[in-house]
Amino acid sequence: MGKLKEECGVFGIYAAENADLTPAVYAGLFALQHRGQESCGIVVNDDGVFTADKDVGLVGEVFTESRLAALGRGNMAVGHVRYGTTGSGGVRNAQPIVVDHIKGHMALAHNGNLVNSAELRSELELAGSIFHTTSDTEVIAYIITKERITSPSIEEALASAMNRLDGAYSLVLMSPSKLLAVRDPHGFRPLCYGRRQDGSYVVASESCALDAVGADFIRDLEPGEILIFDGEEPRSDRRHCGRFRQSLCVFEFIYFARPDSVINGCSVHSARIRAGELLYKRHPAEADVVIGVPDSAIDAAIGYARASGIPYDAGLSKNRYVGRTFIVPGQSSREDKVRIKFNPVSSAVCGKRIVLVDDTIVRGTTSERIVKLLRDAGAREIHMRIAAPPFRHPCYYGTDIDSAENLIANHFTVEQIRDKLGVDSLGYLEQSDAEELCGGLTGFCSACFSGRYPTQVPSNAGKNRFEYRISDRRA
Amino acid sequence: MGKLKEECGVFGIYAAENADLTPAVYAGLFALQHRGQESCGIVVNDDGVFTADKDVGLVGEVFTESRLAALGRGNMAVGHVRYGTTGSGGVRNAQPIVVDHIKGHMALAHNGNLVNSAELRSELELAGSIFHTTSDTEVIAYIITKERITSPSIEEALASAMNRLDGAYSLVLMSPSKLLAVRDPHGFRPLCYGRRQDGSYVVASESCALDAVGADFIRDLEPGEILIFDGEEPRSDRRHCGRFRQSLCVFEFIYFARPDSVINGCSVHSARIRAGELLYKRHPAEADVVIGVPDSAIDAAIGYARASGIPYDAGLSKNRYVGRTFIVPGQSSREDKVRIKFNPVSSAVCGKRIVLVDDTIVRGTTSERIVKLLRDAGAREIHMRIAAPPFRHPCYYGTDIDSAENLIANHFTVEQIRDKLGVDSLGYLEQSDAEELCGGLTGFCSACFSGRYPTQVPSNAGKNRFEYRISDRRA
Amino acid sequence: MGKLKEECGVFGIYAAENADLTPAVYAGLFALQHRGQESCGIVVNDDGVFTADKDVGLVGEVFTESRLAALGRGNMAVGHVRYGTTGSGGVRNAQPIVVDHIKGHMALAHNGNLVNSAELRSELELAGSIFHTTSDTEVIAYIITKERITSPSIEEALASAMNRLDGAYSLVLMSPSKLLAVRDPHGFRPLCYGRRQDGSYVVASESCALDAVGADFIRDLEPGEILIFDGEEPRSDRRHCGRFRQSLCVFEFIYFARPDSVINGCSVHSARIRAGELLYKRHPAEADVVIGVPDSAIDAAIGYARASGIPYDAGLSKNRYVGRTFIVPGQSSREDKVRIKFNPVSSAVCGKRIVLVDDTIVRGTTSERIVKLLRDAGAREIHMRIAAPPFRHPCYYGTDIDSAENLIANHFTVEQIRDKLGVDSLGYLEQSDAEELCGGLTGFCSACFSGRYPTQVPSNAGKNRFEYRISDRRA
Amino acid sequence: MGKLKEECGVFGIYAAENADLTPAVYAGLFALQHRGQESCGIVVNDDGVFTADKDVGLVGEVFTESRLAALGRGNMAVGHVRYGTTGSGGVRNAQPIVVDHIKGHMALAHNGNLVNSAELRSELELAGSIFHTTSDTEVIAYIITKERITSPSIEEALASAMNRLDGAYSLVLMSPSKLLAVRDPHGFRPLCYGRRQDGSYVVASESCALDAVGADFIRDLEPGEILIFDGEEPRSDRRHCGRFRQSLCVFEFIYFARPDSVINGCSVHSARIRAGELLYKRHPAEADVVIGVPDSAIDAAIGYARASGIPYDAGLSKNRYVGRTFIVPGQSSREDKVRIKFNPVSSAVCGKRIVLVDDTIVRGTTSERIVKLLRDAGAREIHMRIAAPPFRHPCYYGTDIDSAENLIANHFTVEQIRDKLGVDSLGYLEQSDAEELCGGLTGFCSACFSGRYPTQVPSNAGKNRFEYRISDRRA
Repeated sequence: MGKLKEECGVFGIYAAENADLTPAVYAGLFALQHRGQESCGIVVNDDGVFTADKDVGLVGEVFTESRLAALGRGNMAVGHVRYGTTGSGGVRNAQPIVVDHIKGHMALAHNGNLVNSAELRSELELAGSIFHTTSDTEVIAYIITKERITSPSIEEALASAMNRLDGAYSLVLMSPSKLLAVRDPHGFRPLCYGRRQDGSYVVASESCALDAVGADFIRDLEPGEILIFDGEEPRSDRRHCGRFRQSLCVFEFIYFARPDSVINGCSVHSARIRAGELLYKRHPAEADVVIGVPDSAIDAAIGYARASGIPYDAGLSKNRYVGRTFIVPGQSSREDKVRIKFNPVSSAVCGKRIVLVDDTIVRGTTSERIVKLLRDAGAREIHMRIAAPPFRHPCYYGTDIDSAENLIANHFTVEQIRDKLGVDSLGYLEQSDAEELCGGLTGFCSACFSGRYPTQVPSNAGKNRFEYRISDRRA
Repeated sequence: MGKLKEECGVFGIYAAENADLTPAVYAGLFALQHRGQESCGIVVNDDGVFTADKDVGLVGEVFTESRLAALGRGNMAVGHVRYGTTGSGGVRNAQPIVVDHIKGHMALAHNGNLVNSAELRSELELAGSIFHTTSDTEVIAYIITKERITSPSIEEALASAMNRLDGAYSLVLMSPSKLLAVRDPHGFRPLCYGRRQDGSYVVASESCALDAVGADFIRDLEPGEILIFDGEEPRSDRRHCGRFRQSLCVFEFIYFARPDSVINGCSVHSARIRAGELLYKRHPAEADVVIGVPDSAIDAAIGYARASGIPYDAGLSKNRYVGRTFIVPGQSSREDKVRIKFNPVSSAVCGKRIVLVDDTIVRGTTSERIVKLLRDAGAREIHMRIAAPPFRHPCYYGTDIDSAENLIANHFTVEQIRDKLGVDSLGYLEQSDAEELCGGLTGFCSACFSGRYPTQVPSNAGKNRFEYRISDRRA
Repeated sequence: MGKLKEECGVFGIYAAENADLTPAVYAGLFALQHRGQESCGIVVNDDGVFTADKDVGLVGEVFTESRLAALGRGNMAVGHVRYGTTGSGGVRNAQPIVVDHIKGHMALAHNGNLVNSAELRSELELAGSIFHTTSDTEVIAYIITKERITSPSIEEALASAMNRLDGAYSLVLMSPSKLLAVRDPHGFRPLCYGRRQDGSYVVASESCALDAVGADFIRDLEPGEILIFDGEEPRSDRRHCGRFRQSLCVFEFIYFARPDSVINGCSVHSARIRAGELLYKRHPAEADVVIGVPDSAIDAAIGYARASGIPYDAGLSKNRYVGRTFIVPGQSSREDKVRIKFNPVSSAVCGKRIVLVDDTIVRGTTSERIVKLLRDAGAREIHMRIAAPPFRHPCYYGTDIDSAENLIANHFTVEQIRDKLGVDSLGYLEQSDAEELCGGLTGFCSACFSGRYPTQVPSNAGKNRFEYRISDRRA
Repeated sequence: MGKLKEECGVFGIYAAENADLTPAVYAGLFALQHRGQESCGIVVNDDGVFTADKDVGLVGEVFTESRLAALGRGNMAVGHVRYGTTGSGGVRNAQPIVVDHIKGHMALAHNGNLVNSAELRSELELAGSIFHTTSDTEVIAYIITKERITSPSIEEALASAMNRLDGAYSLVLMSPSKLLAVRDPHGFRPLCYGRRQDGSYVVASESCALDAVGADFIRDLEPGEILIFDGEEPRSDRRHCGRFRQSLCVFEFIYFARPDSVINGCSVHSARIRAGELLYKRHPAEADVVIGVPDSAIDAAIGYARASGIPYDAGLSKNRYVGRTFIVPGQSSREDKVRIKFNPVSSAVCGKRIVLVDDTIVRGTTSERIVKLLRDAGAREIHMRIAAPPFRHPCYYGTDIDSAENLIANHFTVEQIRDKLGVDSLGYLEQSDAEELCGGLTGFCSACFSGRYPTQVPSNAGKNRFEYRISDRRA
């Protein structure tokens, strides 16, 4: 699966009347930018005529005024931000994908990852299908198309296709006359919708995108729910609801989602504050100051400070012009990038006993480097606290951690990690804490901690076999 | 069909050993640039790993040293130059197309146009196929893929697919281990091959591309012939040869091909010289000077001068920095462009009786404008001579003249055209002259003159229905 | 003066031996990126041969690996990041500027603004000088060049030139064989230097850039000091030191500088924490939570929370992909941009009495919009606290606030502003607090609060008269 | 001087009223594109406000609709196309240059080369001037500016400046309210003007640019004449006229100018036809066909054919997508480029005795390669004829042949060259033929043939000393 993994954001808008929808899609994608920074795209549907534009780059870089204007007006539109690892990226795999089939055009924006895409693709290839991309979104498009032949409507085709798809998918789909949104029956990835005062409906990966376009949040889609926008009110098809126990990705709360989003009724910010509080209960420390690794661990650090009574301080300055370590492809020199990205605030650190809160440890290299920077800045003690359980198992549901090999917690005990990082103490949350974070909300996928996967695990047979290289236009 | 038409050039190279093939493909495409200036692409096959790069622009603009280097080494490669009319262009329809199917990757470079692509596409769509482009090359890829399932080899699949394809196609196809070249059974478009001293084989639309890469011309492919490069010597599959009377596009000699190319044994330059000589026989004129419209009518003007004894002169200066009228998309102001493109040389024109030779009249607007420019420069008489019969009928075999509507000769008599253009006399070749041009070579498609099409004529049902717009990255 | 204002960052490196200095300049400019995001540039000096590259864009966008490589090796280099308001921007005014004069090349990187540039320019023009840019850096280059004719060395020329220059300037200057750094005698803008383990010396606007390149901080330059790097140890020319009382821009602490920088011995972070603490003393509030406007007011909010005992929370989510309101040029719709940029975290805000800390209020429009967003998110009370005195007077020393017209505090009382913003209470720091922020450090320019300017005030005569427009290459 | 040389084209337009002048400048520069293909630029003057845009690339590449639109309307404008050798190119040296001086803005477009620019530059530098470019156009701007201080008008300043300038310069200069055109007193480079029906006046390097914008040719400027456009009718200042014997570059007729241009009353086309005729008289040959090397030697070949009665044929096909050998910078592999650029038409060549006409031989490498190509194509005999005398001496007046080192005729006799090229015979024109070409027109500079320079020859002292490298934005 390797390079096919992605963490993405999807957005859709359905307006009663023809209008310039691009400012809303633009604002919505801007709000979802943290979910994918490699490429982005918008497709506008003007009464069955699709106009698409997608490219490598951030939303603000790609969509200049003239390119937005060239997209024109329409009555619905879909957008996508994508993160892809090196090799499977480029314009070729950018989304939304637009295809033609027997019933006209179809645009798809997808967040997630199928676990049976290799099998489905093999089956389709055996039947004579050809593929232009290496993305599982094209597989989904095919499966829906096949069902569309015998289905009376696109929503029926989608519902039938869902019997074939296994894994994580939050999709926004546009046919010539309808906008559809669907969340897989496990509910791995978030998807919610709302309404704007002008009567248009908006679907998005996170509620912060609804805020950005001035839409009132209505609710999250249920796992397995298909939402159909084709008239005044959206309609729901719930035939796939309840097929499985919900498996919402716990990492959405810990790391992926924006703090101002609310997922399945739980504030991401509150979950992180609570993670910090829990962390203190599990692993108290004697210290002078609590510092969080910006940006995603700040809330947990505030929570730890609150619970402990130790003052919180902004002791690490983050260079706002560097992308997330987790997300930037092609890092030749991780070491130097850490120093460019983070700089200790010496007046907050020097001579202090520090509680350093981070959201997770993946490889451990960044953490090790930050600890070194703090030591060099005069930190007397460093007590590292991780606002999640140890990350031990690969994820197959739409992130790029597809192999246990690089996971430090897979190879070492907590004590060993503590020594490798050079901290005075190290504490994680427990696996059982995940549900407490979200105030009793249940139904999480925490396979990355426990190894208990809610679906089949993809066979490795097909790994990378779809890859060929398309040089980007601008090499 | 409208926007789906194209006049293109294809190129392929098969080397015994792994090497840097990009300089050869680059030189070959440069030599074929006159066949398509909108986009170009190269795919290199390194032991089954395909690396592709294609983009909007001329070969010399797109393929910088770094982009060529990024394509890497390989043992075979295909290239394509493409011309597309506005709307169906852009990177999306650029070629070669690369797809994945059950047997791995396949790259296709296509010159021509199917007349039954709408039917085939409908049939494929009914069976659940999805399309990413609006080009008939994708249809061909599908048909071959379908046959590949049950065929023992890619060449067998291609041979079977040919039973389904109707129309013009000169194709170069690359599988993980083989390079195939095929010319449709009517032989509409040229395709030839040759060998380089290093033992590599080269296939190209025109022999001038063999010259450009230092390859010795071997021969043209026969109509219907499949040439398979997968070992030391190429093999031929001739099962489709002789299915139809040959229908080589006569316009290749009149206009499309480069004068230094030899097609089916006939020098393009000689054919044009003879066209000028014949033209004088048909339509002599009393004049002081013979002038050709650069570049494609220069040879015919020389021929007319030779036959008539009237001195030839270079009386029209052409701005080398403007593309061909026939081929540049998006002309807002044809009038001004003609003045920028052509300027009479007054010393050659002023006070003179002129024979003005052109290769064809399509709409008549450019001719009218040139005549006006010559009159303004002091031409006393203008006797226009066209080195082709009147162009009266649309072409369905890979050019952009898909409708009779814009053809001046479809609406007016020669006398009426003469008056519209404002010339003193006007003479065309006869339909029967075509074969004499090529020194007795027979088997031409001259449907554009006669209306007698060698294949079924495409129904209009599907016209433009595949179109959606993809804004180019660089709007 | 209008559009000529700028807030910039400068960087220089002097190595004993020829080396690849670009990674260091790149890292240094990255660390100074917050000081200017419009354009950036690097000039490398390889034994008197200057290689320069500058462009519009962020450091990470402009300086790709291949562009850095093209700069080559050298024994010294200067870099610059620039912020310019609309109209005077573009590549034309990008820095460092490189000029040729009688003694060879000279590169200048400048942070600040002359108050007598119009007079100097007029004088130079009267003497027959021509100008290619509208920047006062070119004026400085001229004045130095004029002095260079009769001066025995570049440092003498610079020292003489300083007698003519009035205003703010922190400069890094490179001659064929020397690197010079100078801070104007008022010391308006920061400038410091340090040493790397390999013996190379580094000069930068802020100490955070020294950290980024692994240099040990040595000290700030004194106001009026010229530092000359031309051998093993830097030499100081202090003839201009002590000419004036120091006038360090207080806004460097409040807003401009990075919190991890230390200026004139005072930690920026600590100054902001103290500002928050002072603010509480001046304007206590009964509230449930203290929220800072990210990023620059976070520290003051933490300080307010600490002093008050009210919990601090990260109640405003900032979109990391939008540039600073204060600094992005060409804002057509400020309102929408605020909503894209900031989103309240409802769980932290809803039903709460909030202390909202910001660093300053300029026009008031952004503040008004944030208050509205918080109200909509359910804030019960909003007590706004500003970690600076009211901003009432224009600045002529290198920022873009060149007119009192747009300053809300110039037109309205605190009560009126409170009502306009729609907050329940509003409190500013006092002018006398500025020095307390920095732990007793004295010698600030606080003319923007007090209207007491440490230099002459520029006449408006020449305002904008230098402007002509050069369309950017990338329109 | 080396890299400072250039062969350029200038264009200016002066309209009575404010209008969109960009289409005319665009068309004019397009017509002059053959004079320089490296960079181009346009400056529009809207009542004293200058808007400029210049960039590396061809006119058609640089000036997209949006960039033309951004230039806006005005009542006068200047344009420039530039050719520069590697190293001194890039946007930095692109023209027109725009500077500010005491009287406001000034834009300069320059064709030619000063022989005393090094001296002038040194003098200016000694007086404290700084230079941003390495082009002598900046020197000219300075000299005019210095004179402007004491001159009552820009035209007086220009007239005074001309006392200082030595060498070749055809200039178009724009002040806030006037458009000036001037040709140096030697009249090295062409410059003419005309009038459009709307009353606007147009100045251009060649008359073909007047044709392109629909202007009626009025006359060439006299050597030394200043033409001032500042009212209804242009005024002439002839104080410098007659200072020297005219020295019009003979190579304008042989090679540089377009055949449809008329310079100093002589048609370029006719001059080339006559060159061919003379060539036959000097060096008759027994042959079957006359072939010209496209494009610039075609006319001479026609002349040779006419005089000899040997049939003319288009026996070399030129790839229209490759730039001129003479003019493309950065040729790594001249050999391969020749084969891509030229291909013999075998039917015109095989078994024939050929007269091969070219306009000049510089290094001889391209000629040698073409001869080889013709031999390989079966040419039986090749009689090379050069439509100019042997090129033996460097040119200092605006071309890139600045050194005798690379001139084959400087090192070898005609017989030796014949043997090196591998031709059966070789014949040049005589130095005395030059004036006959132009029908008795006298006053040519033929220093490149004779070594008799009409001005001082530049000292080598300053050679390349101004150079520093500015990486282009697009590396």
